[in-house]
Amino acid sequence: MINFNESQIIENAHYIYQQRSKIEAIADEICERGFDLLFFTSSGGSMSMLSPFDFWLNYTSNLPTAAMLSADLLITGCNRLTENSVVFMTSKSGDTKETMDAAQYVKNKGAFIVSAVGVENSPLEAVSDATILYAAGRPQELIFYLLIGKILYNKGFFPAYPDFAHNMKNLGAALADVRKQADEKCRQYAASYHQEPYNIWIGSGDLWPMAYSYSMCVLEESQWIPTKSVSSPEFFHGTLELLEKDVCVTLLLTEGPTRTMDERVKRFAQKHTTKLTCFDARDYQLPGIKDEYRSLLSPVVMAAVLQRISKNIEVITSHSLDIRRYYRKGEY
Amino acid sequence: MINFNESQIIENAHYIYQQRSKIEAIADEICERGFDLLFFTSSGGSMSMLSPFDFWLNYTSNLPTAAMLSADLLITGCNRLTENSVVFMTSKSGDTKETMDAAQYVKNKGAFIVSAVGVENSPLEAVSDATILYAAGRPQELIFYLLIGKILYNKGFFPAYPDFAHNMKNLGAALADVRKQADEKCRQYAASYHQEPYNIWIGSGDLWPMAYSYSMCVLEESQWIPTKSVSSPEFFHGTLELLEKDVCVTLLLTEGPTRTMDERVKRFAQKHTTKLTCFDARDYQLPGIKDEYRSLLSPVVMAAVLQRISKNIEVITSHSLDIRRYYRKGEY
Repeated sequence: MINFNESQIIENAHYIYQQRSKIEAIADEICERGFDLLFFTSSGGSMSMLSPFDFWLNYTSNLPTAAMLSADLLITGCNRLTENSVVFMTSKSGDTKETMDAAQYVKNKGAFIVSAVGVENSPLEAVSDATILYAAGRPQELIFYLLIGKILYNKGFFPAYPDFAHNMKNLGAALADVRKQADEKCRQYAASYHQEPYNIWIGSGDLWPMAYSYSMCVLEESQWIPTKSVSSPEFFHGTLELLEKDVCVTLLLTEGPTRTMDERVKRFAQKHTTKLTCFDARDYQLPGIKDEYRSLLSPVVMAAVLQRISKNIEVITSHSLDIRRYYRKGEY
Repeated sequence: MINFNESQIIENAHYIYQQRSKIEAIADEICERGFDLLFFTSSGGSMSMLSPFDFWLNYTSNLPTAAMLSADLLITGCNRLTENSVVFMTSKSGDTKETMDAAQYVKNKGAFIVSAVGVENSPLEAVSDATILYAAGRPQELIFYLLIGKILYNKGFFPAYPDFAHNMKNLGAALADVRKQADEKCRQYAASYHQEPYNIWIGSGDLWPMAYSYSMCVLEESQWIPTKSVSSPEFFHGTLELLEKDVCVTLLLTEGPTRTMDERVKRFAQKHTTKLTCFDARDYQLPGIKDEYRSLLSPVVMAAVLQRISKNIEVITSHSLDIRRYYRKGEY
């Protein structure tokens, strides 16, 4: 299995999990202060990592929540954001310009900023009211499973949280195992489809951000492969007409509440193209994690699965994931 | 100028404008009842028509507003929606299944439903608390310019509304004129690019929904032309890497607040592809409408411009806009 460092993956998760009491203390502080909005803002792939937590809050509670791209926030604002709001942000480098500008904007509003950052002593940490550090690579999501989970628990919407959080101790090892379970299928997928001229990516609910960001931030950005992403319900409002037997379609199926929408796409697409690939969160075992929590974990399971496409495709195409034509090269 | 019926376009707008006092009375009733949320829900192209009004409310007022696809609403709900909310919906036929299910859902919540419908005595009208009818075709947006404009006026956020609404009397004629101004460029665009294997569509703010829906609901659905749509700020988080000299890029520039984001894309794209087309809302005269209102009107101006691509492309490709492989043909 190429490009795979199991101990590193487990160690990254452990690095976050050992901060559990610190993360829970931040959640407690947020609840004690009170808030009028839980607001998620970031850009590109980072925003897609955060979006499922906005989805989770809306679906399981009446807590006020919203999400918005930092670029849009900077120009149009969000009219719900006040000095009593809590803003969640993330940046690996801790100095992404758009994210920093947005952090300064919400700081000026007087909001309470909680950030997840990949390196110590970054500019983002400097303007944040609370910061949680993570080591390189995923699963940064673990920070938000603990943080948002504890807020939901404190507010009475997630009584199982203590047991859930205890299960999260095994998340790193489970996701390393998912990578092993997924590798062969992902290697074949990469080998079969890396030269396709057009790739339709579909997902819904808590996996729609993943369909959107994996196709754009990995296939387009790092492999220069053209894609289209569309959510499962919206697929039926236009993109369905493109399907013919040789059109490449990749569908992500969630174990979350919107699964029926993905299954509808599957039934339709398998009738109209021979190049349909389904990556189904349900297909992967999660050793050490109770089944009752699986419906929350599709985003992090799918991130692990799709990483095996990335790790294989760069070898197959002899095109390193790190090559860029333009991104962060000069001004634009 | 092919496929163009000027008097019909003007008549469609007049049909809506003559209902101005009825529309304003609905706005007044909404304000008198009070509300905790102004909520927009629909699907596909109809949702894209509504989204700029959610954008407008957020940008210019502190009124509580939200938008959500009907399919998502039906499964996950919206935790801000209560019996004190106002829900705006639209459907040309008035019987779209997803929209009707969503209407029933919000009706059960006890919300106040305002619908815009293309035919009389539809199922959607039957469950709505107030309905405004429009004739076939655009500009249905005119209903919402008057309705949302009057709500903003009543709440103190749009003092110029009476004059704005007076200007709207000329909207139909102005948009017919826009079509004449745009036709030759659109005809050439259709002739040049209808066989492109991949078409990147970009827009931002109040024109992002148009970039999204025109590429999906017209080019994909009715011409079977593969597209990718991405918002102007998000373009720089991945899709930019696809640009080479022969990659077809279509950029919509708004006169709204996010214009700087579109201009950034323009500066970048014109350096890296020879197949960049910019449709700029600023390029079209609007006879009978004051310049100070132009910044609100990009969605309806661009709808008129892009319709000239549609009307020309179906002749050039000998592929009627009405042909479908699958859409509304049998169950799926």
